[in-house]
Amino acid sequence: MSVGGASRGRAGRRPGRPRAAAARGPATRDRIVEAARAAFAEHGFDGATVRTIAARAGVDPALVHHYFGTKQRLFMTAMQFPVDVAQIFPTVEPGPRGEIGERLVRHLVGIWDRPEVLGVIMGIVRSAATDDAAAGMLRSFLIDGPLAVVGGALQVPDGPLRATLAGTQLIGLVLARYVIRVEPLASLSADRLAALVGPSITRYLTGDLGEG
Amino acid sequence: MSVGGASRGRAGRRPGRPRAAAARGPATRDRIVEAARAAFAEHGFDGATVRTIAARAGVDPALVHHYFGTKQRLFMTAMQFPVDVAQIFPTVEPGPRGEIGERLVRHLVGIWDRPEVLGVIMGIVRSAATDDAAAGMLRSFLIDGPLAVVGGALQVPDGPLRATLAGTQLIGLVLARYVIRVEPLASLSADRLAALVGPSITRYLTGDLGEG
Repeated sequence: MSVGGASRGRAGRRPGRPRAAAARGPATRDRIVEAARAAFAEHGFDGATVRTIAARAGVDPALVHHYFGTKQRLFMTAMQFPVDVAQIFPTVEPGPRGEIGERLVRHLVGIWDRPEVLGVIMGIVRSAATDDAAAGMLRSFLIDGPLAVVGGALQVPDGPLRATLAGTQLIGLVLARYVIRVEPLASLSADRLAALVGPSITRYLTGDLGEG
Repeated sequence: MSVGGASRGRAGRRPGRPRAAAARGPATRDRIVEAARAAFAEHGFDGATVRTIAARAGVDPALVHHYFGTKQRLFMTAMQFPVDVAQIFPTVEPGPRGEIGERLVRHLVGIWDRPEVLGVIMGIVRSAATDDAAAGMLRSFLIDGPLAVVGGALQVPDGPLRATLAGTQLIGLVLARYVIRVEPLASLSADRLAALVGPSITRYLTGDLGEG
């Protein structure tokens, strides 16, 4: 889309207003992404509109299209986890192999508890029920996410099955703690959750899974 | 609402059409509930309308209001699990206590695999992200559902915490198998899932959970 496209928005356009240089550039792009993250977290993919996201970011809707093309592409950008998955295994590897699940749960809960990550979690969960791209993100968390990386690095047989099983436990924990907010799970510390849920993850990733 | 209210629907009303006796009674009520279950499963609470549910059931929208009052009450009725929770513990109790989780997973997957139950699962999950009543149903599954009944019957300390932990694993399994449909979880037999996931449930319900 041409830069000129940004001036074709209908709502909120003030004719004759000079195009302020401050309304462009990385800071504006970041503000749109932040506004999108908040809107998707509150209303899900279907409920959030480019118009309301633009209003929240204080820009013309055409500028959102200029930077991101479609709402779908904006969603994919806003819902990126601000976490480098490749860093997870080096972080959780040191220590007894029989407690890998405890270390992984403690580390992931520490990440999930960060306010900017919570918005991503809520956005994906609120959208996954009705939007294929969001459902695909949950699927790829189960298939290619941190558990697959850790499972692969542990070099155990049946890695994909193990990672997916561990993923079901973690997705259920995320739902209960952050979305449904069930007590006491919503208030427990990362350490306590690691002690409670970690052994299940350890078993899925490294234990005996019986006959296939 | 008076029975006369049923004739006040605007769309689809044919003036002068006699009120057929066949359009009332338990069979009609059941047809509305079935149509509602399918609509909520496909579109969630927000997306399904009384008008489309009525059309699906072949009745006037006013008749839906006559039987159920609000969309909220229709949702609560349609999303009742067709399962007697009190029967679950007597069914899964016989056998070694150390395999209670395996028996519970096998039994529950057998129930969830039934087509009419799948509609309820999808309806609640698709609605929980945007509707408080549906989120409350998931919460009560975690707090008061089959796990709480089984946990209570096992007479272990920290029953509510144990039931909620087991619930996170089961909700994650339901999401992965039925909603996101991740393989191989979506295709595994109830017996295989029981062997894979059951030991986690057994530990949550009866095992050592460490210091609180």
